[in-house]
Amino acid sequence: MANLHHHPLCAFSRSIRLALAECGLEVALTEEKPWEWRQELLALNPAGTLPVFVPDEGAPIAGSYAISEYLGDTAEARDPRGFQPFPGGLAERAEARRLVDWIHHKFHDEVTDYLVVEKVFRRFGPQSASPDMEAMRAGHDNLRYHLTYVGHLTETRSWLAGDVMSFADLAAAAHLSALDYLGEVPWEEFEPAKNWYALVKSRPSFRPLLQDRVAGFTPSETYTNLDF
Amino acid sequence: MANLHHHPLCAFSRSIRLALAECGLEVALTEEKPWEWRQELLALNPAGTLPVFVPDEGAPIAGSYAISEYLGDTAEARDPRGFQPFPGGLAERAEARRLVDWIHHKFHDEVTDYLVVEKVFRRFGPQSASPDMEAMRAGHDNLRYHLTYVGHLTETRSWLAGDVMSFADLAAAAHLSALDYLGEVPWEEFEPAKNWYALVKSRPSFRPLLQDRVAGFTPSETYTNLDF
Repeated sequence: MANLHHHPLCAFSRSIRLALAECGLEVALTEEKPWEWRQELLALNPAGTLPVFVPDEGAPIAGSYAISEYLGDTAEARDPRGFQPFPGGLAERAEARRLVDWIHHKFHDEVTDYLVVEKVFRRFGPQSASPDMEAMRAGHDNLRYHLTYVGHLTETRSWLAGDVMSFADLAAAAHLSALDYLGEVPWEEFEPAKNWYALVKSRPSFRPLLQDRVAGFTPSETYTNLDF
Repeated sequence: MANLHHHPLCAFSRSIRLALAECGLEVALTEEKPWEWRQELLALNPAGTLPVFVPDEGAPIAGSYAISEYLGDTAEARDPRGFQPFPGGLAERAEARRLVDWIHHKFHDEVTDYLVVEKVFRRFGPQSASPDMEAMRAGHDNLRYHLTYVGHLTETRSWLAGDVMSFADLAAAAHLSALDYLGEVPWEEFEPAKNWYALVKSRPSFRPLLQDRVAGFTPSETYTNLDF
């Protein structure tokens, strides 16, 4: 069986778990602690980052970018009516990729990095330390701005990038779900973003993520609740 | 004519200028100062980042990720024998994308961000400041590690990702060329990386980049020299 090396609260890993499930690909999960720089992980991905997808046959595919595009490249052959990470024509595909770029990098650097990496990964890392409160405050401020943008997109479109669900929705939901686990998302103040997230959260692909537990971190009360 | 919004020392912009030229696509260039948050740029790309490609027809395409994949999606129709940013089968495409990810993000965060953004963009930005010497030292150390990895790749392959040139080569050369403009690359100590860079640098697509000049920053002595 194919294998995915991941960490339960790594947003990049989560986005790929969702994409694999939407594509109907079953995988075994190998939990990694990226701060340990495990030799076996470095052999699969010299950058030492997650996720890494090891297909049944062929070389490992490292990183959410290469994996999501691999799923796009193989979607048609797998199931022409199945999930396509980058659906539509050139303009629609470019829009989905613009948003994935925004979420996996801008949102990550301005929010996830402050609120998840700072709170969880830093605690286990080699330079173990308490969260930097200044950084967390910045993360909270930035999150509000990004939730407004998500809401803005969903008020004019069915899904973030257009009429059909794309990898952009899965990537955004992945980051928000990691934040939600930690109780960091003020959903009540961002109704349009909340409505969109409820849609993604209720998909069967999301169920395994809602069962994740990380030692030392209890999920927020609303984390598993589909009617949050 | 199609248009590219860019900044001469933005490595992401440079990678796309090279890719457009390799694809035989002529574009007009519009120079942006991203630290000014110009309304017209934000209308093209709400993230305010570069580059943005405005094709002859159709919507603008924002960011090096979406643009490079757009060039991949359209390569076959444009010229089946022309440049393909992500050439080969599934494994080769995944390898090129892994390396683009590494260069545009890991290399960027660990080197370019310290040595170019810190030195050039920070000077013009709203919080104009002198370079942070600690950050620059870290950037120099990290650069040596990355140049070793580039050399390692080129000792077993013709190009970074395999037998043919891909967008991974253009992305890596783009970052290194911005650093080279500022005289930050210790080429003499990294012969294999230097030999690979000399190959990319001598391509016709590279010529316009060698003519770039940024006010306040004189290019290094070897910047335009093909026999550096």
